[in-house]
Amino acid sequence: MKILKLSALIATCLLTSASVLAQEALNYKISGGSPIVNDDSSITFSVKAPFAGIVKVNGVGETLEMTKDSTGVWSVTTEPLSPDLYTYSFDIDGVRTLDPANIYTARDIAALSSIVIVPGGNADLYAVKDVPHGNVSKVWYDSPSLGMQRRMTVYTPAGYDPAGSRRYPVLYLLHGMGGDENAWSELGRAVAILDNLIAQGKAEPMIVVMPNGNGNLAAAPGETGRGLYTPKGEDSVAEYGAFEKSFPEIVDYVDSHYLTVPEKSGRAIAGLSMGGGHSWRISLWNPDMFDFVGLFSAAVRWNGSGVSEGDEELNEALARQFADAPSLYWIAIGKDDFLFDLNKDYRVMLDNLSLPYEYHESAGGHTWTNWRDYLTLFLPRLFRR
Amino acid sequence: MKILKLSALIATCLLTSASVLAQEALNYKISGGSPIVNDDSSITFSVKAPFAGIVKVNGVGETLEMTKDSTGVWSVTTEPLSPDLYTYSFDIDGVRTLDPANIYTARDIAALSSIVIVPGGNADLYAVKDVPHGNVSKVWYDSPSLGMQRRMTVYTPAGYDPAGSRRYPVLYLLHGMGGDENAWSELGRAVAILDNLIAQGKAEPMIVVMPNGNGNLAAAPGETGRGLYTPKGEDSVAEYGAFEKSFPEIVDYVDSHYLTVPEKSGRAIAGLSMGGGHSWRISLWNPDMFDFVGLFSAAVRWNGSGVSEGDEELNEALARQFADAPSLYWIAIGKDDFLFDLNKDYRVMLDNLSLPYEYHESAGGHTWTNWRDYLTLFLPRLFRR
Repeated sequence: MKILKLSALIATCLLTSASVLAQEALNYKISGGSPIVNDDSSITFSVKAPFAGIVKVNGVGETLEMTKDSTGVWSVTTEPLSPDLYTYSFDIDGVRTLDPANIYTARDIAALSSIVIVPGGNADLYAVKDVPHGNVSKVWYDSPSLGMQRRMTVYTPAGYDPAGSRRYPVLYLLHGMGGDENAWSELGRAVAILDNLIAQGKAEPMIVVMPNGNGNLAAAPGETGRGLYTPKGEDSVAEYGAFEKSFPEIVDYVDSHYLTVPEKSGRAIAGLSMGGGHSWRISLWNPDMFDFVGLFSAAVRWNGSGVSEGDEELNEALARQFADAPSLYWIAIGKDDFLFDLNKDYRVMLDNLSLPYEYHESAGGHTWTNWRDYLTLFLPRLFRR
Repeated sequence: MKILKLSALIATCLLTSASVLAQEALNYKISGGSPIVNDDSSITFSVKAPFAGIVKVNGVGETLEMTKDSTGVWSVTTEPLSPDLYTYSFDIDGVRTLDPANIYTARDIAALSSIVIVPGGNADLYAVKDVPHGNVSKVWYDSPSLGMQRRMTVYTPAGYDPAGSRRYPVLYLLHGMGGDENAWSELGRAVAILDNLIAQGKAEPMIVVMPNGNGNLAAAPGETGRGLYTPKGEDSVAEYGAFEKSFPEIVDYVDSHYLTVPEKSGRAIAGLSMGGGHSWRISLWNPDMFDFVGLFSAAVRWNGSGVSEGDEELNEALARQFADAPSLYWIAIGKDDFLFDLNKDYRVMLDNLSLPYEYHESAGGHTWTNWRDYLTLFLPRLFRR
């Protein structure tokens, strides 16, 4: 007997138990499955729900009503969509469900959604390609100031060798409110973006550290003794300022456990929304630490309110930071972002103080679509002088 | 104004966008959420589905029909359950859905399920506790024999310091058919089990390497250029024997990138089902490599069929391996496992050849309930002589 035939035999035997679960999923698929990304960049969603009265899909622009065929399969095809990663869910008679035929999901605070990528343009950076991959680690470090062991995500680029001698610069990349140390590597697609930009020679190989920015929490939901609880966005700001003050502990840990370039020229910090506010304050409070600063839809609130040119403390901190100005101080926000005016006030302040920065204004609002895009624009600017 | 009030203000502003998603989830919860583990170890499941005709829950013993209250919320309470991690799903008018109020899921091949832990007994080892945590990394290594970069999961115990001098023994832990490098750390709860047993002093601090055992695949679904596809169990055995032959590449990589005890006394190998078969053959083919061998519900098939005492090649391989016998050769299987007779044949063969092993026979069949339990029994036996 040939080896190949024997392996088929084994497959049949071993599948006895495995196929129960596999078939559960297959039962709910139509031919070709759901979602299907069509050649014109539209998506066809489908779900078998013979007894349902109204089935809709949410997350791809307007809510779309699906229609039922004679076999009980509901489906709908969207308009052609811009290349991006889309999060979506079905509404079946008022019950929010994931796509039963799609095993790919992402969590945003307390809700899971199904995900799908429409390729092309920037979205090709969000897809995993056959390029050398960096390693991704969930790492616990000690925070004496916050009084706990805390978890962060660390990306080391392809070729990083802990026993080698090559040193790498470090980007600290911070999440927004309700997020955690998983946000940038999951919804943010940071790992694929880094792998792809580095492989294309468009970004320097770098270490990327994605800590948990919630000063009162140690780690993402389910990763601590608190058990399997439902996260709340408000938890993120329960200890205002504590995370920012603790930040040098993270830099110390990273510099002592990884082959870093342990100086200002080898460090960048960026974050979105709350994490943009964190990046803003941390870089202000540690003027010798970061040579590259990225504020993505940032909550630039000084002492919790807006910025004010009359604030002596802020003025002095900015003067200290810009005395040896960062190589890049990059502010990005969408025209429709609810933090747009706050960022405008801050830019006016920087202009009046003649402090140098770069500004990127995009369409859209306070969305992962923008934050992923900002990351693809920011990374190529780092550590190249 | 006080800082705390200001932070509440920020929370309100920033939640503008975040709350859309959070509330989506909350809309589908009744007071207290779903699932609720009750004091008597029963679980109450609930879901709001006012327009549904039949709602059931699968995965906790018998399928249970739920009943609807006047607000459209369906619910059911199980019998008291044994402590364990349970995977479950709802069936709403024939549509398989996850529990919309539970963000915790696990994937088994091509199906996602919601998960919940009933505490007590062994299940307390499956829950994350406030103990020192090991780090978990997704690591790419080069496999010249399989012709690709491949991904594995590596656990390093709390206190592991890549810049230090302390060396650790290594357990290689292999998944079953349809699984991948994520299986043991997700459904297998290996990380929590290791953290807890090590913290209790019941297991030696060790490195645990969980490779991808599918010789024709590089990594879990979604982690390669193949994109977001639906996995099939059959993929696992498409290259019969290739993974086992490539195994020394993994050991070489681990010994050169981690602070290991790079000798037989510092290495263990164990696996479930197909991974049990892998562990069996790999340890046979590399008699000087592993001092501890664990066969969990193992597919002990020689050249694809059962074992036979008349097989000269197998007899010689066993003689070589047991000339310097492993400190522990541990066979575990459930009474109802479809591989029970195969393992019985193998034990008879070992008995007839007077080769030493230990045998653990449990209730139940080819299930994660058993494999998690076997891991908790196997780990305390390793690297202690």
